[in-house]
Amino acid sequence: MIGNVIVGQSGGPTAAINASLAGVYHSAKERGAGKVYGMIHGIQGLIEGKYVDLSKYIKDGLDEELLKRTPAAYLGSCRYKMPDAESNPQVYDTIFKLIDKLEISVFIYIGGNDSMDTIQKLSEYGAKIGHACRFVGCPKTIDNDLPLTDHTPGYGSAAKFVATAVKEIVKDTYCLEYSKGLVTIIEIMGRDAGWLTGAAALSKGEDCVGPDMIYLPEVPFSISKFLNKIEKLLKKKPCVVIAVSEGVKNSNGEYICNSGTGAQFTDAFGHKQLTGTASYLSRLVSAEIGAKTRSVELSSLQRAASHCASRMDLIEAFQAGGAAVIEGEKGNTGVMVTFERVSDNPYNSRLAAKDVTQIANGVRHVPVEWINDAGDGVKEEFFTYARPLIRGEVGQITVDGIPRHLPSPVMKEYE
Amino acid sequence: MIGNVIVGQSGGPTAAINASLAGVYHSAKERGAGKVYGMIHGIQGLIEGKYVDLSKYIKDGLDEELLKRTPAAYLGSCRYKMPDAESNPQVYDTIFKLIDKLEISVFIYIGGNDSMDTIQKLSEYGAKIGHACRFVGCPKTIDNDLPLTDHTPGYGSAAKFVATAVKEIVKDTYCLEYSKGLVTIIEIMGRDAGWLTGAAALSKGEDCVGPDMIYLPEVPFSISKFLNKIEKLLKKKPCVVIAVSEGVKNSNGEYICNSGTGAQFTDAFGHKQLTGTASYLSRLVSAEIGAKTRSVELSSLQRAASHCASRMDLIEAFQAGGAAVIEGEKGNTGVMVTFERVSDNPYNSRLAAKDVTQIANGVRHVPVEWINDAGDGVKEEFFTYARPLIRGEVGQITVDGIPRHLPSPVMKEYE
Repeated sequence: MIGNVIVGQSGGPTAAINASLAGVYHSAKERGAGKVYGMIHGIQGLIEGKYVDLSKYIKDGLDEELLKRTPAAYLGSCRYKMPDAESNPQVYDTIFKLIDKLEISVFIYIGGNDSMDTIQKLSEYGAKIGHACRFVGCPKTIDNDLPLTDHTPGYGSAAKFVATAVKEIVKDTYCLEYSKGLVTIIEIMGRDAGWLTGAAALSKGEDCVGPDMIYLPEVPFSISKFLNKIEKLLKKKPCVVIAVSEGVKNSNGEYICNSGTGAQFTDAFGHKQLTGTASYLSRLVSAEIGAKTRSVELSSLQRAASHCASRMDLIEAFQAGGAAVIEGEKGNTGVMVTFERVSDNPYNSRLAAKDVTQIANGVRHVPVEWINDAGDGVKEEFFTYARPLIRGEVGQITVDGIPRHLPSPVMKEYE
Repeated sequence: MIGNVIVGQSGGPTAAINASLAGVYHSAKERGAGKVYGMIHGIQGLIEGKYVDLSKYIKDGLDEELLKRTPAAYLGSCRYKMPDAESNPQVYDTIFKLIDKLEISVFIYIGGNDSMDTIQKLSEYGAKIGHACRFVGCPKTIDNDLPLTDHTPGYGSAAKFVATAVKEIVKDTYCLEYSKGLVTIIEIMGRDAGWLTGAAALSKGEDCVGPDMIYLPEVPFSISKFLNKIEKLLKKKPCVVIAVSEGVKNSNGEYICNSGTGAQFTDAFGHKQLTGTASYLSRLVSAEIGAKTRSVELSSLQRAASHCASRMDLIEAFQAGGAAVIEGEKGNTGVMVTFERVSDNPYNSRLAAKDVTQIANGVRHVPVEWINDAGDGVKEEFFTYARPLIRGEVGQITVDGIPRHLPSPVMKEYE
């Protein structure tokens, strides 16, 4: 018997994070779980005693389908770094008392690198005190940078939105710019890894030239090479489109946008919040080349555009949620569900689980061999890797012309 | 007999502008037109002798369907203001010589306020020299600000994207912000008329609280009322979401983004930079209230997001293209196709045509009675008006996970 399950969502949301939540709920119920609880605003809310009985919110199959299509973390998210058990035993005591009170046997956390740190700490603490509760991670991040997994749910939908939006912006640029020369710079999320920025390349095809240059954070960014290439291209064509990661750095390892004007602040994990790379580069091009420029930030829609979700991504996110339940049922703790690719074409991946200690706080980069020699584009290997993950559309459920979502407990009190 | 037809696209594109092009092509062919030509980059390209035979590009019904789903102006656009015939007769001479050479009997221009100025000038010149060619305007603009028509094709799709994106951003904000207070300001296109900004209100529904404040350019923007309301709201809730038109002005008629010294900052190159409205207001809120802020520009996706097109909009855009052909066939010149609303619910509109002299260079505003007394939201009348225009989805035709478009002659040479 699986007993009671609790599930939380953490970190930046994705268009697939609620499909994983639906997967946890569906599998737990199907496997005979008593109660399935949801933490409100992740572990941070749980510490304050905030949780809900999910059966009060997910009442039938239609609710489950709406939940899969609902953007942002349905239960609310948090960016809370667990303290060490030695320095702050009260936090652990609070959490484990709640686990006992709710008779939780499986604790599932849907999140990225930082959230797996939470799973690692809780499972280690549980082992130390001899607690029976299992702690399982369910992967989620648009950045696709979790180690030991072929890819991460959330990435496929974000990549599909980026590829679609970049294609539309490229078309917009070519139709408007006739002869004068316009440089459009599109900024894409992904602080450390270029998986999402690379997805801009997927806009290229038999009906679209795609961006002229794509800059990933994996290789140092050279301003002089960047400007030279633009000048060369503007002699041949009226517009140049560039996709750039928010996290590109120069050869000294300094963020390019640090020379810019974007506001910066540091989050609880010590990460610098970046804005303004495209804006900075636009001004640079304008000042150095004199060309007309436009900068576009794809903004939080990269993680929130459920209306453009990838079917494959939502299917796999749902599967990952279910697999997390099974890992817990099997008695595994301190693990995260992973994907192992079996084949590219036809695409097939196998679910597995790996020790979180090798995942927590780690980063998986785009292989440098997948980036071209000039450092301004991705090779065929990237297309082969990413294409299966963005394939397929999700049937929209719309009311009055816009997508209908499952009403979230987080927003309910402000209605 | 209808003879030969030429069609051009002008001004900022929309997600529906190519559905009108498809409508022109389809109706002209069906009514026995000989050739249907497309101007490359509108009248500007035509003056340089650039045009294509559309039958070489639209080969069958599938091509027509792809064209309807293709973002940006398929034939390329321009922002060219026709000179007066008195001051620059050569331009008119060039155009009418081409009309004679191609044996054009109907000249259709798909565009907004400025494009109707072109139709007016050409039809007046044609009448003056006794030319038989008819000049007909087909309405297009995301701004929805053309006089004498209930609405304009292109608006419905842009409004649907704005409502969908704002809903997703609102959800993203509520899920991430727990207790600290985050003010998100979303900037929306429409310098003079608030139709598109008002569409942010359509995000509100039984599953979403929507934005807290919506500012249209039709009413003066008061910075003190704006700041007071945010402070009041932050006492009750963790996040505040605001939608603002790029064109809001203070009571002196000055654009808010130009008004204060705070609007300007010096960039890394020592140049004073003018920021956008949302970016300026974010800095203001941060400085005056001390709240964390985020500004989002929905960018050119507002006019290019074909992947989120409204079915009603695409149907009506196609109909408008066809109606323009019929106007020309009937011998009417100097007119633009318009929509007259028959009823809101069930929604029904009737096609008509009006004299362009009353449309060219004019602006139709959101009625002030549709804006609430506080000047920070829209009333039920706006919902009743806008909802029918965003209803219905367009079946996607995707290849490798992203929308397939009809390859444009404008981009072909750069492949």
